[in-house]
Amino acid sequence: MVNYPSGVRAGGYPQKKKNQNIRYGKRGMGLEEMINQANDYYLVNHQAVIHKKPTPITVVHVDYPDRSMAKITEAYYVQPSTTDYNGVVSGKYIDFDAKETKNKTNMPLKNFHQHQITHLKNVLENGGIGFLVLGFTTLSEYYIFPASLLIKIWDKAKAGGEKSLPYKIVSKQGIKINSKMIPSLDYLPALKKLFNI
Amino acid sequence: MVNYPSGVRAGGYPQKKKNQNIRYGKRGMGLEEMINQANDYYLVNHQAVIHKKPTPITVVHVDYPDRSMAKITEAYYVQPSTTDYNGVVSGKYIDFDAKETKNKTNMPLKNFHQHQITHLKNVLENGGIGFLVLGFTTLSEYYIFPASLLIKIWDKAKAGGEKSLPYKIVSKQGIKINSKMIPSLDYLPALKKLFNI
Repeated sequence: MVNYPSGVRAGGYPQKKKNQNIRYGKRGMGLEEMINQANDYYLVNHQAVIHKKPTPITVVHVDYPDRSMAKITEAYYVQPSTTDYNGVVSGKYIDFDAKETKNKTNMPLKNFHQHQITHLKNVLENGGIGFLVLGFTTLSEYYIFPASLLIKIWDKAKAGGEKSLPYKIVSKQGIKINSKMIPSLDYLPALKKLFNI
Repeated sequence: MVNYPSGVRAGGYPQKKKNQNIRYGKRGMGLEEMINQANDYYLVNHQAVIHKKPTPITVVHVDYPDRSMAKITEAYYVQPSTTDYNGVVSGKYIDFDAKETKNKTNMPLKNFHQHQITHLKNVLENGGIGFLVLGFTTLSEYYIFPASLLIKIWDKAKAGGEKSLPYKIVSKQGIKINSKMIPSLDYLPALKKLFNI
């Protein structure tokens, strides 16, 4: 008899846990949780299929305390090679990352990584739709911002330019996500507007 | 000083390991490895962006034997809610799973799971392209097969019908993937042909 940790079924697959790492932003939810909630809503309502990718992990050792139970006892995080989210809206491929900041005047570029920029470049090159969901939590403002502009600003920053996405540019070139009850971050209308889907 | 397991860098991110679980099929590679090789080729040659999703794992406990080192010491596999692969070809969203069998006359449906079928249904409903890469390893034959047909056969099987995808149907309704040197499983032409991309 094995004492399974809470949330783990005998079949070896734990039930999906809700993100418990709640940051007290908009409506008490963090950005990731709001996006997951919106994605669940779009799936059930046949509006889009968008999922967060699992965090890549290299498993080194697994124990089998029970015939039907696999317990990973040694594993390491692996650097991802893509963004966190992708999916399909009206047949079109969409791909994005979500970032939030307490800063009121800009989103520091240190929130991004080269592999994300490279991946978004590849997506655009193959006709996909790439963007960011950017949250200015102190202002309670959220935007859809095109990856093409992020890439330009990133490349300029590498050449010695400003190391941030100014709020002025985000609010001017992006599309603001309107507040809603359900889902609280209803980002699909802003996304469709920006990219004419 | 910590003794890192081989392949793990001090930054906590192991280098990506090649799939070492080689099954001796076509050219000595397993199906998953052949698809990963093809995806790498398509990415470098600007033909598509297709990635395998990481296996979902719930992390319960992490040790920090070193400031820059995160060692997961307790974690469990989580049931996936999607297929293994997705990406973009000429702006279109594609989504698939890959299965192989030694059986010469059919692909048993026990190789599939309800969550994969449900996900493929959702993808089709939102205008995405869903399919399977099916390998009959004894025959050294590989096919692109439309998800729409798998779904029909799956639903019939649940209603008491045959619990397999007959080879005859796969070879007739699917598109055979031609052998090539690099990449060895060049599935993109067959995919484009089947779906008129």
